Amino acid sequence: MSDDIVIVGAGHSKFGKRKGKGIRELAFEAVQDLMSDFNKGLDDIDASVIGIAGEEFSGQGAPAAVIVDEIGMVGKPTLRVESACATGTAGIKAAYGWIKAGFYDSVMVVGVEKMTAVSSVRATELMARAGDVRWESPFGVSFPGYYALMASAHMAEYGTTREMLSSVGVKNHFYGAKNPLAHIQKEVSLEEAMNSIPIAYPLNLYDCSLISDGAAAVVLTKESIAKEFTDTPIRIRGVGSGSDAMMMSERKSLTSLAGAQSAAQKAYKMAGITPDQVDVAEVHDCFTIAEIIATEDLGFFEPGQGGQAVLDQQTYIGGKVPVNVDGGLKSKGHPLGATGVSQAVELRKQLLGEAKKRQVDGAEIGLSHNVGQSGQFVNVLVYSR
Amino acid sequence: MSDDIVIVGAGHSKFGKRKGKGIRELAFEAVQDLMSDFNKGLDDIDASVIGIAGEEFSGQGAPAAVIVDEIGMVGKPTLRVESACATGTAGIKAAYGWIKAGFYDSVMVVGVEKMTAVSSVRATELMARAGDVRWESPFGVSFPGYYALMASAHMAEYGTTREMLSSVGVKNHFYGAKNPLAHIQKEVSLEEAMNSIPIAYPLNLYDCSLISDGAAAVVLTKESIAKEFTDTPIRIRGVGSGSDAMMMSERKSLTSLAGAQSAAQKAYKMAGITPDQVDVAEVHDCFTIAEIIATEDLGFFEPGQGGQAVLDQQTYIGGKVPVNVDGGLKSKGHPLGATGVSQAVELRKQLLGEAKKRQVDGAEIGLSHNVGQSGQFVNVLVYSR
Repeated sequence: MSDDIVIVGAGHSKFGKRKGKGIRELAFEAVQDLMSDFNKGLDDIDASVIGIAGEEFSGQGAPAAVIVDEIGMVGKPTLRVESACATGTAGIKAAYGWIKAGFYDSVMVVGVEKMTAVSSVRATELMARAGDVRWESPFGVSFPGYYALMASAHMAEYGTTREMLSSVGVKNHFYGAKNPLAHIQKEVSLEEAMNSIPIAYPLNLYDCSLISDGAAAVVLTKESIAKEFTDTPIRIRGVGSGSDAMMMSERKSLTSLAGAQSAAQKAYKMAGITPDQVDVAEVHDCFTIAEIIATEDLGFFEPGQGGQAVLDQQTYIGGKVPVNVDGGLKSKGHPLGATGVSQAVELRKQLLGEAKKRQVDGAEIGLSHNVGQSGQFVNVLVYSR
Repeated sequence: MSDDIVIVGAGHSKFGKRKGKGIRELAFEAVQDLMSDFNKGLDDIDASVIGIAGEEFSGQGAPAAVIVDEIGMVGKPTLRVESACATGTAGIKAAYGWIKAGFYDSVMVVGVEKMTAVSSVRATELMARAGDVRWESPFGVSFPGYYALMASAHMAEYGTTREMLSSVGVKNHFYGAKNPLAHIQKEVSLEEAMNSIPIAYPLNLYDCSLISDGAAAVVLTKESIAKEFTDTPIRIRGVGSGSDAMMMSERKSLTSLAGAQSAAQKAYKMAGITPDQVDVAEVHDCFTIAEIIATEDLGFFEPGQGGQAVLDQQTYIGGKVPVNVDGGLKSKGHPLGATGVSQAVELRKQLLGEAKKRQVDGAEIGLSHNVGQSGQFVNVLVYSR
């Protein structure tokens, strides 16, 4: 009766400042990586879902069709989904629905973004449009500002410190240095992180994720036919989504994301697991404070304890729950539309024991937490072998 | 076992140049109209899918969240879908999948676009970005140009005439004059249409759809619980999608859309019907030639006969198959993201016998044909009581 949806293929481009590579070439690179370890051809995949957050970065309107053309799926039905920085997981969720609806047996999900064709100031301005352009961004706030508000509130309410924030960056760079696909493969000392230039108080440069180019791709199908595609399918065990008020000023709390909490509850319930069963987590560390709040919203730590947990290395491999051991958005990079799909690609590697220097031994359950805007779009997915 | 997906509520804003109304207010207007005839409250709807084609028209990035906030569904999961001008039906298809996946029992789909905040030249330029911005639009082609190529080819191959093209506009204005929600509620004579200013040869002003503001909304749920929402659910009987090469120069034919043909075949098969069973059709008449080609691709008429059919009034009420009797994109208007949802709203009225002056007597099966770009995104949906 129940026919689980599974991932039967995955690919990932190098993330970084990819000069000369546009959305087409980045998507192609991810799909080529996927095909290198896939029993079937592109002709055997019925449709695609393309995740791209912002069309202004590339200047291509309705960009799904040019991607489909480039990756070699001409003539196959497609659409673009967009949920700001949660676009990638929105794509996986849409494809899941299409398969369950019986429209297709297999769907390719490609998440991609080209962000460095414009300056980083322009990129920040374009991202700021995802805030409320009537009531928020005209008054000067951009995304570092939204998360700075959350950081200040978290510090005031729980005594979270600058050292705790910087420690998230240190951890993610520690692991990013072990990921050959990461944008910045370089360790950072706590001192360096703490003394980096201020961006939006209390957030410094090393509290902010990277403006990156990149793409990631997965193929979804039904468990009943998965063996045609691969011997090692990964099951999507839980899917939960949440949202919250558009304006920060209308939120009940600035120290947690209500949408992440409800998304997590739904995903855990669907998967039939509790937070302590998660072996490895990819969370949306667009800013260091976001990772701390994520580990609390997901139930890994009590509210207010996420900062201390990273100081105590509880989110390192060997700790309570390894978090972002691919480098996260902070060090691996954050090409907006690619991020949620990249999380799936990384978790698949972990669950298959293919994560090499950053492998969490014996990982059986992986969780992905992907946030758009300042919490208006949240998708939490649970994966297992 | 089979639990059909049904439409249990529908609403529609006035289409037109809606001064002072942005995407929020337009969406609100459509949802208010929906709620005026709905047994339940917004709290009883689990999630939403927002269809907006271009973020540059409104300047709002990641626009789904502001819409959800404005219509009163704060905190409910949402995402944006985009398939250029086929965005509205892409939203219905995504919501269909979400319900079939078991994520939600009921989903609101809102399609909306605010196009007249910018000049019509700017709007045409923004739409042109949906062509290939690397290989097509830089050389000067915009959407009237793509469809002018199709019109020229159709004239050369089948002897289609300017009079046939203009007759589509005459018909659609004839019916638009009977639709109080239409952008232009004014009949146009064949002489006026034929003598209107050239836009892109052979297309004149009256061959081109309108640049409009507007929104439309539907609520989808499962047939098994439909009675909680309404006594008159409309079933989604068939869903088919197709695509084609990005570049016109790579198409096998310019006189038909391969994606529309395959989408129609899938939709008919799923619905278990043949083209001659369609009682009323909404087709994507972004240009008059597009309607002629649509009626051929959908199997209503033989290839090359669509032009003669409109001359013979076969697509009027009383003819073989009434097409766009709400005025179509030509007269009702074409707010990009709203159009596919508007088609669903109109067909629901027809199937419920509520279309007043433009009612097709006894209509039992309705078809919607929604095209994005120049055929890269095509969705065909079949509805019945």
